[in-house]
Amino acid sequence: MRYTSSAVEALIEAFAMLPGIGRKTAQRLAMYVLNEQDGVTLRLSRALLDSKEKVVRCSLCQNVTDKGADPCQICRGRSRDRSVICVVESPTDLLAFEKTGHYRGLYHVLHGVISPLDGIGPDDICIKELLGRLEPGDGPPVKEVIMALNPSVEGETTVLYLSRLLKPLGIKVTRIARGIPVGAELEYVDEATLSRAIEGRGEL
Amino acid sequence: MRYTSSAVEALIEAFAMLPGIGRKTAQRLAMYVLNEQDGVTLRLSRALLDSKEKVVRCSLCQNVTDKGADPCQICRGRSRDRSVICVVESPTDLLAFEKTGHYRGLYHVLHGVISPLDGIGPDDICIKELLGRLEPGDGPPVKEVIMALNPSVEGETTVLYLSRLLKPLGIKVTRIARGIPVGAELEYVDEATLSRAIEGRGEL
Repeated sequence: MRYTSSAVEALIEAFAMLPGIGRKTAQRLAMYVLNEQDGVTLRLSRALLDSKEKVVRCSLCQNVTDKGADPCQICRGRSRDRSVICVVESPTDLLAFEKTGHYRGLYHVLHGVISPLDGIGPDDICIKELLGRLEPGDGPPVKEVIMALNPSVEGETTVLYLSRLLKPLGIKVTRIARGIPVGAELEYVDEATLSRAIEGRGEL
Repeated sequence: MRYTSSAVEALIEAFAMLPGIGRKTAQRLAMYVLNEQDGVTLRLSRALLDSKEKVVRCSLCQNVTDKGADPCQICRGRSRDRSVICVVESPTDLLAFEKTGHYRGLYHVLHGVISPLDGIGPDDICIKELLGRLEPGDGPPVKEVIMALNPSVEGETTVLYLSRLLKPLGIKVTRIARGIPVGAELEYVDEATLSRAIEGRGEL
């Protein structure tokens, strides 16, 4: 059974193609779009087109940036420490680190992790672009590469793969610490995390 | 803290304006849009514009329909019983009844219910259009109006208001039955529903 309007039906189908949005949610969103008078619809439509036309990847760090702003804001930043590169999986993860305001080095976005089950090999993510940045060039040499991937099986595989590639180049390869999160109750922390926390203990 | 691309930021903000979509979900949707290559983005963008350009309300039942297809498919249907009108709150509710394939009369979509707390009075929903349809005209007269609004306080208020308006016109006004849903366990059905089920009992 379909709506009496084919335009409404097309809108529901398009919404339902987005990840995590089922037909019921798509119906609710479509009804909102039909009733709203604040220009949200035109704004979203415009933003969708713009995202395809104007967004490119930074030629250095592969993070998303606007056409005409390449290298990106971070790669151009004068106060950045150019000898450290933090490797992340996605622009969202990069943003999470930027939010801390603590890290002042550069980034490299892989746009994925190695996942043989999903058919994603080393050539499908931005590893060669990372290697390109490590070759001796005009700027100061990269001294350290920090692995900041998600602690999943695929993330760990990628970290292992990359560290085997990078260590022979004489570059220090580190990974972000695994341990108990700030504010957690030890009682409720899982065994694997507790083991990592003991392993990675530091002197006071 | 913002993304390094203003186009990405605009896209996230536009997604986050939709109801039930927070910033985290909006970020996830935006990342999907940036990475997908299947044309979902263009399709959604087009569908959004179309929904504003092509969708109108049926001049009879107020249901959504395409420009150029007014009166809508249901109002034009030859096998429909034109002496019965089922009053619903939204096009989604209409669709729910159509899915049953059981009801063969016409509909009237109010596009809302009376809700004084939200500042929605009788003039803000499509009540006058309903009254217009009940006036003696060319077609067969309307004999029955079925109230099929949600069993909320606002829904009940609207049913009461409408029945007071319609009864003096000599039209039979009915409401859909309230009782235990098919498949429910009596043990877990709430008291109000059980009371309605007893009240509305029918002879075998």
